Order: sequence, then C-alpha cells, then structure tokens
Amino acid sequence: MSEAPASIDPSDWVCPLPLRETARVVLGHGGGGVLSEELIENLFLPAFGGRAGPARDSAVLQTGAGRIALTTDSYVVQPLFFPGGNIGDLAVNGTINDLACSGARPIGITAGFILEEGLELDVLGAIATTMGAAAAAAGVPIVTGDTKVVGRGGADQLFVNTAGVGVVPPGVEIGPERVRPGDVVIVSGALGEHGVAIMSVREGIDFGTEVRTDSAPLHRLVESMLAAGGPGVHALRDPTRGGLVASVVEIARAAAVGVELDEAAIPVPEAVASACSFLGLDPLQVANEGKMVAFVAAEAAEAVLAAMRARAEGAEAAVIGRVVAEHPGMAVTRTPFGTTRVVERELGEQLPRIC
Amino acid sequence: MSEAPASIDPSDWVCPLPLRETARVVLGHGGGGVLSEELIENLFLPAFGGRAGPARDSAVLQTGAGRIALTTDSYVVQPLFFPGGNIGDLAVNGTINDLACSGARPIGITAGFILEEGLELDVLGAIATTMGAAAAAAGVPIVTGDTKVVGRGGADQLFVNTAGVGVVPPGVEIGPERVRPGDVVIVSGALGEHGVAIMSVREGIDFGTEVRTDSAPLHRLVESMLAAGGPGVHALRDPTRGGLVASVVEIARAAAVGVELDEAAIPVPEAVASACSFLGLDPLQVANEGKMVAFVAAEAAEAVLAAMRARAEGAEAAVIGRVVAEHPGMAVTRTPFGTTRVVERELGEQLPRIC
Repeated sequence: MSEAPASIDPSDWVCPLPLRETARVVLGHGGGGVLSEELIENLFLPAFGGRAGPARDSAVLQTGAGRIALTTDSYVVQPLFFPGGNIGDLAVNGTINDLACSGARPIGITAGFILEEGLELDVLGAIATTMGAAAAAAGVPIVTGDTKVVGRGGADQLFVNTAGVGVVPPGVEIGPERVRPGDVVIVSGALGEHGVAIMSVREGIDFGTEVRTDSAPLHRLVESMLAAGGPGVHALRDPTRGGLVASVVEIARAAAVGVELDEAAIPVPEAVASACSFLGLDPLQVANEGKMVAFVAAEAAEAVLAAMRARAEGAEAAVIGRVVAEHPGMAVTRTPFGTTRVVERELGEQLPRIC
Repeated sequence: MSEAPASIDPSDWVCPLPLRETARVVLGHGGGGVLSEELIENLFLPAFGGRAGPARDSAVLQTGAGRIALTTDSYVVQPLFFPGGNIGDLAVNGTINDLACSGARPIGITAGFILEEGLELDVLGAIATTMGAAAAAAGVPIVTGDTKVVGRGGADQLFVNTAGVGVVPPGVEIGPERVRPGDVVIVSGALGEHGVAIMSVREGIDFGTEVRTDSAPLHRLVESMLAAGGPGVHALRDPTRGGLVASVVEIARAAAVGVELDEAAIPVPEAVASACSFLGLDPLQVANEGKMVAFVAAEAAEAVLAAMRARAEGAEAAVIGRVVAEHPGMAVTRTPFGTTRVVERELGEQLPRIC
C-alpha cells in the first residue's frame, strides 16, 4: 500500500533525553513511578502524537451515535521487524481492520505493551513511532496506553495489545447472519504476502523477489464499499491468521451456507505462490494484514467492486466465488479443470507467531 | 470485599469436552484454526457467560450518550493465584476501576490473552471462569477477546490485557485539572493489602494473619459518590502501582497544587504495617486493587464520605488530607509530631509484577 507510512528502523530512531543513561528497558519502566512517567513523556507521547497522556487512566472520546464497536488483539509476531513493516503498524492496522469488519468508523486505539527487561529503547522507540505514524496515516488516534515490564526471559522482547473503538453508523448492519445463497464473494486484493514476508526473514530464505507485508488500514475502503453497496454489503472479514480459508469457512458455518470459490480467480502473486510451494504452505491459508473478504448481495456486487477498485487498497479487488445453499457450513474450491475440493481450516496454524 | 466472587482454583475447574486429549495449551490454540475455535467455544464462552463469540472480530455495544471512556491494562502478576484472587479478577476489576476514575459507567470489557505453550488448560479455565464471575458480579460483560500462544519460554505462563469502554454520564467532568486548594483528600479504605498478599505468597513468608488482595470493582462506589457530591467530586484515582504516593503526587503535578496528608489518618491495617516493616516497604507505596483516592470540594466532602461509608467497598473511607496552594507539584505528610516530610514516588517500583 503506497499510503502506508514507512516502518521505522531502530537505527534511525533517536532516544530523546532525558530517558536517563540507560539505553534499555529496566523493570522500573513498568513500575508506575518516575521511570514509567519518563517513558511515557519522552518516548510514547512524542511517538503517538501527544494524546496518550499519563495523567488519566482512561481516555474520553466523543461519539454521538448510539452504537460502538469494540475490539482487541495482541501481537506477538517474530521477528519484530520484517519487509514492509513492523509489529507496531501491524497492530494499529489490524485493530482498525477488525473495527472496519463491523462497518464501524474507528475513533480511538489503545496501546498496551508488555516488555522484556533489557529490550533496547531504540527498538521500542522505533516501534512506537511507527505506530504513531500508522495511526496518523489512518486518522485514528492512539488515545491511552499501558506498559508492563517483566524480567529477562519472562517475555520475548515485546508484545503489544491494541484495542479499538469505532462508531457504527446508523443503519449499518454487517454480520455473517446476513449472508444468503446467491451472495458474491469478493476479495480486495492479492493474498499471502504478509505470511510469506515473515517467513522469508524468519527462515532467511531469499525468494528472488522481496515479498513485503500487505499491512494497511482498510476502514476507508469499507466506507467506500458501504457508500456504494449500502445494505447489500452483508459480511466482511479480514483474512489474517488462517488466511482466506479460515474467513470463508467461519462465515459458511456462522451463516449455515455453502461457499464455492473459483480457484483460478483468487489473486495470488507469483512470488507468493512459488514461496508457498517451496515451503509447503497453502497460500489460501497464509495470513494477510491488509485484505478484506466481502460477502455482497449479487445486485450490489458490481457497484461495490467498482468502489473498491477506485481505491489504492482495493485496486486488485476480484470476485472469487459465490454463496450457495448446498453443503452448509462448508467451503469448496472449483479448480480450472471443473472439479471441486473441500477446503478445511488448519487444526492449528501453518506459521506460529505471524501477527 | 464480601461482594467479590471467589477466585477459582485450577484443581476445581473441569475442562469441558471436546478440548481434544491435550490438557495443555499448544501453539495451535493461537493459530486461528479449529483449535482456536474449540478453545473459544469450550473454554472462554462458558467462562465469560456466552457473549464473547468467535464469529465477529469486534463487539457492538449500545451507548446512547455522547462521550465514552476507553482504557487498557495488561496484567503480568506473578504468581497467577494469590490470597483472595487471581490475575483474572484483578484484570476485570482493574479495568472497571480505571473507567470509574473517569466517572464512566463501564459497559464492556475485552480479554486478550498471551499464553505460553504448555500452560495447563485447567489454569486458563480457572482464570477465565474467575474473570467471567468477576464480570458478572460487576454487571459488566466481557464482550470480545483474542488469544495468542508463544512457544515455551517465550512468555511466563499467562498474560492478559483487558480494555474497557464506559459511558460518561452527561455533566460528569472528573479530572486532575479540576482539583483546587481547599479540596479534601478521601481514601475509600485500608491501604497496602494487595501488594502484601502478593509478596506473602511470592516470598513464602507467613505474617501470622493472612493478608488478602483487596481487588474489587469500584464503579458502584463512584456512582454513589457522584450522586452525593455532584460536581464537587473533582478527581478520582485508583492507587495501584506506586500506591497512594504515586496517585497523590501525579494529581499534585497535573493540577499544580500541593497535597498535605495526615499520616495518622491514613488507614493501614496492622498486618500490612508489620509485613511492610519486615520487608522494608512503604505501605503508602504498595499497590491496592480495590481502593479509590478522591479529591473533593470541601463543601461536598461530608456528603461524599457518608455515601462512601454506606457501601461495603467504602465502609472504611476516611479523610486523609487536603489540597493546598503551597509547594505545587509536591505532596507532604504531616506526622503525629507535627513535622512534615516530602513524599516522593519511587524511581521504579518496590515490587515488580504486582499486577
């Protein structure tokens, strides 16, 4: 996504004074005392853009509508930095996208860190600054936060939890229970990039072409889709852990419908396909962090698809299948040879700690 | 607090079928696949009371007012179980109390777990069930959640993040900027119990009397205080990490006022005082998880105090000091001998991983 802010490298982040002489996280940074305050005032506030103050335990937000959406996600991805992003923008975008999947307009995000004693402040600073930049790019402020520090060996470098609140506009009703046979399945773009980007750095494998994470905020895309399709937009999912397959099977089960995917229509970049084939992974089960799967009424599909393609983050949107009354709770793919096969979710996961 | 639900012991929690044959957390429980769904459906949903479903990435809540409060806290306390509670009710009550400190009525809580591979499901089940019971007792549902699993050694058993949303009633304006010289400082009850309870189990020290955590939800207490004191309730703080001293110094700094505490008026139980003296801790800097410090206009103080004492969680409420124009940003205690000493926050923390 060209709109996404660049991931900041720890070597480019300069620790502002006065964070004492230490260049690393110490237990006291999580103690609620002077060191905690210094970390908030000198690292988090500048990084997040000045709204996550230490003086209150919670942030107060203006809503003005009758319904809000609330979501939470913890991020434990390893490594912390990878092609195209780091754990920080992944967390911000991921939480925005969970809200967007409810049709909500995100209005605020929290940031709760669990840090391992000894973590370099440069690493924390680079991640926090990336979060601030991602939040600013998305227009969704980080409004409050929390920091805990555990002893060396008590955690793996840095975990971050982001929770988010959004306002659901009047009349917007999105959910799997609205999915009907006849609905069209649309994906917003190419699949598999995030998972392959993580694997390439984790395993030190060079696939020829660098595959970068697709991490991106999708709330504006959803806004366009709702403007174009109105109540014809039935359900939205971001295919993160478990990939496209998990999203589609979950919707099929929740709505008690069948889903039929056209294998040839599913956009998988060449580099992702060859990396997956090399690693023995199914690209349809690899995590994405900037893609959306939409279940849309047939009569609204053309308008929604056009609205998606008009935005950078939906430029490669494609119809990939349809909802059927047959085999409720199951998804099948139709191969280019006309045969079908049942797609099943993984029992666990292909790739641990992918987000 | 007699209202609080009992902390559930892992040996009393029975793992419902069909969580497969494993009695422990495996990486796949965090993978977004079938195992994740089994964990949600068979462990979290029964524990939380059926609202935190897997079918949506975020929960939608009805508000109906124009302002909401948003808060987050991660919990990393060790050990996970301690006299009077466990990490689960600590997290639920802590998040409710952060919202209550904004004068907000809590309406929903999230639960984000980071689990170490190999954690016994009985431990997770007992903690989740305690969270569900604490949420039910407080009347605040757990509405959505997330689970990540990291490999053995990647985390210390279990961390949980809770974020919370509350509605701020029209006209309620609570914050340090409203604190004025002349305000009265009130504490809702005895100090130091949570920190001493943790230390007693962590260090295996028998102090004669068992000190139990004071973990309790305070939103109803705050509601009574606001009903009695109206706009005379200026600021509220829950003295968790850093204890009373951190709360008072932060308010003094944020409001640019001085605070004078009467040392003899501060309620510290005998068992806490002797444990602190034995351990070399300052009871005024030990964490509390079910207490509130209030800064109240002098003319409203009597009514607020009476309202607090009428509730179990405020029965021992006491006036412990006053706000002065002198020494802005600083807090002092007046000793029984009439001398004063400046109280300073710790640089880091007396006790790591206390919450």
